[in-house]
Amino acid sequence: MITKTELMRQIVQTVRLVKETNPMVPSVTNAVTINFVANAQIAIGGSAAMTYLPDEVEHLVKAGGAFYINMGTMLPVYEQTIPRAVEVAREIHKRWVLDPVGISSGTRRADLLKTLKQNPPAIVRGNASEIIMVADMWGVVPCEDIQTARGVDSTQTPDQARDAAIALARFTGGAVAVSGVDDLVTDGMVVARSHGGSHFMAEITGSGCSLGGVCAVYAACAETPFVAALAGVNIYNLAGLRAEVLAKGPASFQTEFLDQLYLATPEEVATNPFEIEEA
Amino acid sequence: MITKTELMRQIVQTVRLVKETNPMVPSVTNAVTINFVANAQIAIGGSAAMTYLPDEVEHLVKAGGAFYINMGTMLPVYEQTIPRAVEVAREIHKRWVLDPVGISSGTRRADLLKTLKQNPPAIVRGNASEIIMVADMWGVVPCEDIQTARGVDSTQTPDQARDAAIALARFTGGAVAVSGVDDLVTDGMVVARSHGGSHFMAEITGSGCSLGGVCAVYAACAETPFVAALAGVNIYNLAGLRAEVLAKGPASFQTEFLDQLYLATPEEVATNPFEIEEA
Amino acid sequence: MITKTELMRQIVQTVRLVKETNPMVPSVTNAVTINFVANAQIAIGGSAAMTYLPDEVEHLVKAGGAFYINMGTMLPVYEQTIPRAVEVAREIHKRWVLDPVGISSGTRRADLLKTLKQNPPAIVRGNASEIIMVADMWGVVPCEDIQTARGVDSTQTPDQARDAAIALARFTGGAVAVSGVDDLVTDGMVVARSHGGSHFMAEITGSGCSLGGVCAVYAACAETPFVAALAGVNIYNLAGLRAEVLAKGPASFQTEFLDQLYLATPEEVATNPFEIEEA
Repeated sequence: MITKTELMRQIVQTVRLVKETNPMVPSVTNAVTINFVANAQIAIGGSAAMTYLPDEVEHLVKAGGAFYINMGTMLPVYEQTIPRAVEVAREIHKRWVLDPVGISSGTRRADLLKTLKQNPPAIVRGNASEIIMVADMWGVVPCEDIQTARGVDSTQTPDQARDAAIALARFTGGAVAVSGVDDLVTDGMVVARSHGGSHFMAEITGSGCSLGGVCAVYAACAETPFVAALAGVNIYNLAGLRAEVLAKGPASFQTEFLDQLYLATPEEVATNPFEIEEA
Repeated sequence: MITKTELMRQIVQTVRLVKETNPMVPSVTNAVTINFVANAQIAIGGSAAMTYLPDEVEHLVKAGGAFYINMGTMLPVYEQTIPRAVEVAREIHKRWVLDPVGISSGTRRADLLKTLKQNPPAIVRGNASEIIMVADMWGVVPCEDIQTARGVDSTQTPDQARDAAIALARFTGGAVAVSGVDDLVTDGMVVARSHGGSHFMAEITGSGCSLGGVCAVYAACAETPFVAALAGVNIYNLAGLRAEVLAKGPASFQTEFLDQLYLATPEEVATNPFEIEEA
Repeated sequence: MITKTELMRQIVQTVRLVKETNPMVPSVTNAVTINFVANAQIAIGGSAAMTYLPDEVEHLVKAGGAFYINMGTMLPVYEQTIPRAVEVAREIHKRWVLDPVGISSGTRRADLLKTLKQNPPAIVRGNASEIIMVADMWGVVPCEDIQTARGVDSTQTPDQARDAAIALARFTGGAVAVSGVDDLVTDGMVVARSHGGSHFMAEITGSGCSLGGVCAVYAACAETPFVAALAGVNIYNLAGLRAEVLAKGPASFQTEFLDQLYLATPEEVATNPFEIEEA
């Protein structure tokens, strides 16, 4: 199993490389939080570019260091755009990150998500219920577990999604990040638990969406998807904790949070409290 | 006529119930202010979910505690989405809130608005001109009054829209909220005037849109649409007044305003200055 | 050549007239930064209205004091909306501002941009590479220059785009604003260089997009497009410099920046450091 010291070394390297090389990481993402995603990606040193259209997405997947797909606020044209993006990404072996937000809202989105199984993402980022549902939808965990899990839905904790996350990571060959009070990140072999964050992160829109975008930026520079996801989760926990002290409500929290994303050093991101165990 | 004391009791109850039960209130809303609407809804204790698509909207109207439709920045698909939302809401007796923003921009939107007359909203929220125009479009006030009113357009005050608002509320059987320096809220029997707010509310985009979204969240928990609308108008006047003191410009005002929405207690919302009279 | 004193007098007049008359300036613009554009336009005294649809855009171009088209995050319907807007603007001699952001992302956008040559904008606002590419696309500078320029792309400085900007302004008969560390504004006869700004302007999304929207508001009141563009560039340099001192990161910078746009007086905008020379 990889050591914590080695993980921390790779996190430092990833965060530093992003700041030095300013990788462009395009997204198809959610109208509600599109500005937050872009500003978070830029705050950590990346460059953002958002698109809706199939012909643009092809160009952008090729030009980008990685790609981010967030399924909130679907538009009709996404049924062409998202499959095209994913296909191009596979052809040129470009890492992409999936945020399956809204997975339970209607069949159109579910149908589209099912097709993504063939070209799976390097990182899946979601809350516990979303991760369990993706694992179920792609048939990578026994159905009986899922039926139970679905009953409690969004009240599930990352630990309740541990098995689904591990199975999903083994299937994709990448990493899975489960957001919650303590975040869980796994590559199917190692499970990391990262601590910190703030209650305000659930009291604004976009903390999850923008974390997906940040993981995609780190994925452009990290040795493995697992390191990229852990770097993203760590900087979010660090910035959330620091911002909460300075905030008096959710809006000032968001401003402080983005400032703290910008100010965090590679060493600070690597030393945010986390522990690892075998999957 | 309902007493002010009883109204205050119901406002306290509504604001508290929202904080305790975190009702999910989906929206079809304006791209310009979509983030502000979501964050305002979350700040008062609700849960936001935005959509564009007909099949999703059906699912979301059913799942939500109420629904919000804001007609700014129309997309082609809205011609399917909005009628479907409204029809589902009627079938299952779910309250919905209409913000007819941009009512005078082109015929496509006007045509769509006319069709909504058949399944009227629980709350209409707009400025004086918009309320007068909806009342006219739905034929609920004599045309000659309207012709005069239209001449002055957005310079109309809530008091000039008083008759139109009362007629509109009587037609819908719900409530109408007219935004202005002093806000007017009516259910066709009682007219409430709520005081406070800030000049900065007209110097940012989205104070009206987000008020509509907040009224929809309160509508999920209030005994009547009138109480929901008055609770929304009261918390906006309270938060606006408090934020203005702390702000040095419109952007810091918006941050302070959202923080104050979050910090306002049920009792503070109920005791924001307002008076009532018979319609 | 126009004197600096005369330019400053016209800037004062333009900035003051906007504050006094609150001109409505509609936009077809970028989903990522649509809120920032609207709030910047309102902060300087204008009124914003965003649209996606062809029938609305016709109404809004007629109703507005000027019009703004930003080509980021294209939607399918824009292929009807943008040509219609530009045609109506020409018919009624309404000034419009073009931000060709994303000019290199796919052929659909390039094809659309090429058609705009027939009804050219009063102001083109972009970074050095974008200005060079528009000049090339519209065939207003020798191709060999362009080929060299394209090789370095976004690392080009405004001075490297000087010839392209002058040629483009001579072709359109309006003004061109090139954003960079020092900004360059020209009407084909005079070149102005405006100083100030902040490194944070490249570390948030939307400082360029919102500058385009602000130039459009000034274009509604200025004697010439050149004065409108220079007023916009000057207030951005002024507000950027002031906001940087007050900010601790990019998010607090954005809040401070919008506040400073709001607080800047006409005289302060006119006296922001700039010099002029013959083209």
